Amino acid sequence: MITGEVIHVLPQISEIKTGICQVFIQHTSASLTINENADPTVRKDFEMYFNKTVRENDPDYQHDYEGSDDMPAHLKASLLGSSVMIPIRNGKLFLGIWQGIYLCEHRDHGGSRNLVVTAWGE
Amino acid sequence: MITGEVIHVLPQISEIKTGICQVFIQHTSASLTINENADPTVRKDFEMYFNKTVRENDPDYQHDYEGSDDMPAHLKASLLGSSVMIPIRNGKLFLGIWQGIYLCEHRDHGGSRNLVVTAWGE
Amino acid sequence: MITGEVIHVLPQISEIKTGICQVFIQHTSASLTINENADPTVRKDFEMYFNKTVRENDPDYQHDYEGSDDMPAHLKASLLGSSVMIPIRNGKLFLGIWQGIYLCEHRDHGGSRNLVVTAWGE
Repeated sequence: MITGEVIHVLPQISEIKTGICQVFIQHTSASLTINENADPTVRKDFEMYFNKTVRENDPDYQHDYEGSDDMPAHLKASLLGSSVMIPIRNGKLFLGIWQGIYLCEHRDHGGSRNLVVTAWGE
Repeated sequence: MITGEVIHVLPQISEIKTGICQVFIQHTSASLTINENADPTVRKDFEMYFNKTVRENDPDYQHDYEGSDDMPAHLKASLLGSSVMIPIRNGKLFLGIWQGIYLCEHRDHGGSRNLVVTAWGE
Repeated sequence: MITGEVIHVLPQISEIKTGICQVFIQHTSASLTINENADPTVRKDFEMYFNKTVRENDPDYQHDYEGSDDMPAHLKASLLGSSVMIPIRNGKLFLGIWQGIYLCEHRDHGGSRNLVVTAWGE
């Protein structure tokens, strides 16, 4: 859950009355999505579901240079998406009460990840 | 299909020559997507497909406080996404001729849903 | 892979120091996503995976006027999405080193496709 970090790295959001904030991930084996911010079992169930739905070791995969989690990570990244766009109202991310930003790591050993945060409005 | 409602709640779109309109949903068990606006069987097939692909009652779900449709609703919401972004040209949403905005309700009894519409451009 | 084309059709991107570029597809049976730009087998594995996951000829489909690839194309389009949003920094699309824009054609005979490219910033 990275909602707090986004606000922290871009304090200028507090000066925007009406606008949008984009968070973008510069990788193809990790992704961003918005989902339930309270119960950590939601995140566990996300991982379980995506591991079942995007199987490792499908013999039909051609791209597996980096191991059995390589191609599944690319597929999960596109199913969830590389950015989230959140409205800003009165200097705050105007998320629903249960919404938070997930950074979804799809590799077993993904290393650090670069995010790019952009906000605009007036 | 909520394309008409979006235009209705934000009449200022008509004053924007080139821009973007975002529609954002403040919930984690409903989603927004763009798809075929003409034949209602497409929407029925969407519901059928997502019910088959994101099963209720998977014994591996840990998060099921609100019933068997709880976790599947969260998963479907992230597969489809919490916002759509539509270009504006000459005061109109510049959708393709067959495109409309779907509000996808993933709970059996979801209640009312809040949307946030933001447009910008010049 | 259409990353180069996007830059070509909107050379004004080079004048934007900080901003966003949206690419939008005006169709409901093709989609846009960001993924690995180097190894063409990733794109082949995408097609293989989505063909397995969104089956043709499901007897439960009601919408099949245009053939067995009709409804699967609509579903794949919404799973992947109708637009990508890319940050601009110092006049360039600020993609990660391995990221490129995929135009995903989901029909067997899709014809030409219209994209709408919009960029803003300062």
